[in-house]
Amino acid sequence: MARLLPDALTALAIDALRQAGALRATAESTARALVYADLRGLSSHGVSRLPMYCAQLRNGRVDPAAQPVIAADRGAAVLIDGADGLAYPACDLAVATLTDRARQFGSAVAGVKRSHHFGVGAAHVAALGAAGMVALVFSNSPAAMPAWGGRRALFGTNPIAAVFPRRNGESLVIDLALSQIARGKIAIAARDGKPIPEGWATTRDGQPTTDARAALDGMMLPFGGAKGAMLALIVELLAAALTGANFGYEAGSFLTEEGERSRIGHLFWAIDPGALAGDETYLSRVEALIGMMLTDDDVRLPGHRRERLADTAQKEGVEIPDALVAQLKGS
Amino acid sequence: MARLLPDALTALAIDALRQAGALRATAESTARALVYADLRGLSSHGVSRLPMYCAQLRNGRVDPAAQPVIAADRGAAVLIDGADGLAYPACDLAVATLTDRARQFGSAVAGVKRSHHFGVGAAHVAALGAAGMVALVFSNSPAAMPAWGGRRALFGTNPIAAVFPRRNGESLVIDLALSQIARGKIAIAARDGKPIPEGWATTRDGQPTTDARAALDGMMLPFGGAKGAMLALIVELLAAALTGANFGYEAGSFLTEEGERSRIGHLFWAIDPGALAGDETYLSRVEALIGMMLTDDDVRLPGHRRERLADTAQKEGVEIPDALVAQLKGS
Repeated sequence: MARLLPDALTALAIDALRQAGALRATAESTARALVYADLRGLSSHGVSRLPMYCAQLRNGRVDPAAQPVIAADRGAAVLIDGADGLAYPACDLAVATLTDRARQFGSAVAGVKRSHHFGVGAAHVAALGAAGMVALVFSNSPAAMPAWGGRRALFGTNPIAAVFPRRNGESLVIDLALSQIARGKIAIAARDGKPIPEGWATTRDGQPTTDARAALDGMMLPFGGAKGAMLALIVELLAAALTGANFGYEAGSFLTEEGERSRIGHLFWAIDPGALAGDETYLSRVEALIGMMLTDDDVRLPGHRRERLADTAQKEGVEIPDALVAQLKGS
Repeated sequence: MARLLPDALTALAIDALRQAGALRATAESTARALVYADLRGLSSHGVSRLPMYCAQLRNGRVDPAAQPVIAADRGAAVLIDGADGLAYPACDLAVATLTDRARQFGSAVAGVKRSHHFGVGAAHVAALGAAGMVALVFSNSPAAMPAWGGRRALFGTNPIAAVFPRRNGESLVIDLALSQIARGKIAIAARDGKPIPEGWATTRDGQPTTDARAALDGMMLPFGGAKGAMLALIVELLAAALTGANFGYEAGSFLTEEGERSRIGHLFWAIDPGALAGDETYLSRVEALIGMMLTDDDVRLPGHRRERLADTAQKEGVEIPDALVAQLKGS
């Protein structure tokens, strides 16, 4: 293991992306989001993704020269065309646009089409929270889960993330995939040749499995059964039908070098608390609820552990496998 | 059992509410939403609620003369003050306002504060769907579920409903509470002296129970464990922190005559598909996904069974217990 401070890890990521042909702004945006994940212990969504991103930039599944543009605009609703590039510049444009529009109109949405893997949703909503906005983001992803009662994978694991700014300047960040477990964790187990617990996934023909490789070819299961499957359907429709993106069953995999372009979608939603109850009422209400939750010794706030990990990693760096560092330096 | 056609059931509901002092517009709005639920087989959220609504109108826990007003307005974000009345007139104002604002700005939100039980979320989003809008609604409700790891009830069962208009003029309506089961079903079991299945709820001190009365005094459990509890937290913050409403643990019960006012909140969100991908792209994308889901024989669309029940009930009426009819006529 190599221990890298955030700046060094960011520079390594930018260099790898630049060598694969990405524009500088794209490389910087992507590196920032991946390092955000690594600092928070989410290595499955960190720089471990770069070898695949770079392979896809090189073979044209992701356009290294893509620049996102606003394709439709009605004030409080904006559609961004990700132009088949990496997702991060399009997400950054969505966040910047929403911050302005939610301030102006009180709330706004930004859809993103022709996009790709956007990492952890938390990284994107955190930027909106830092600007004082309550925000949610919904993304679909390549098919991994069946409709309820179905025998084929139609929906992605379809993450939802939310942010609620707090009085102390920090934000409460909540981030969940709708599968029992994140697909990236299965990918890492498969890479490392390790088994996965029962209940995470099925084989291609719907049988339960503990074989991570078989699970990558099979289906994930939604958390919470039929209700989780309903949420996955809602996210497909918000992220892809509203934006004109590919549904999960149409999207090329994030995890293989070859294949169709992903062309999935995201939907960002931001609300300025000042436009509804007002900032003071909103902020005091948030602290009242959090205070009540924490009167119970066994309750932890979502995201709390991650933020403490990030505090430590900012000073002490994060451990990255030597093989990955070598691969990124040589890419 | 009495079998009542929709018009007769609506008239019965309006009369009962008027006799309890409700304004005509309030009575009509409330009756419409409750009959919507009864027609769809959701009797726990239908006119069975009226004896309690009427008792609360009479004792002042709900203000019979309340008229909702717009308390804040920034174009695409509107806050409605439910003024401690029944929820339905405030929800109708939210729906009407959102339809206009989402058309004008592409998307909009409407918060509602000082509100009460809003019945099935589906009834409210269905009206937005009929106007061509994609919409979601989030509501909190009196405390029924613990935070994850907690030992006291903080969050309501916190329903989420979504609507997606379709090309045929119907809409796909998705409606779920975040508890394993709707609290209304436990209330009906308690009223009828019937047991409930294990896993629905706990006693007041957190022990599993099949006693419906003990469960009404105890805690519901979220669907999907920790992830369901995170969604319940998101809904509390959207519906109550943003609007300045009561959190679940502060809200007076819907199911007792005496107590504090409920003063819970709702958050409505509407998006005009024409402002993002455009109506044609959106509508064809929705049909593509639904078509793919239905290629699997065992897959049913959410809400499908309810809408077929409603088709039948429109012609043949719905069965209402004789005792309830007598109670409403005498109220």
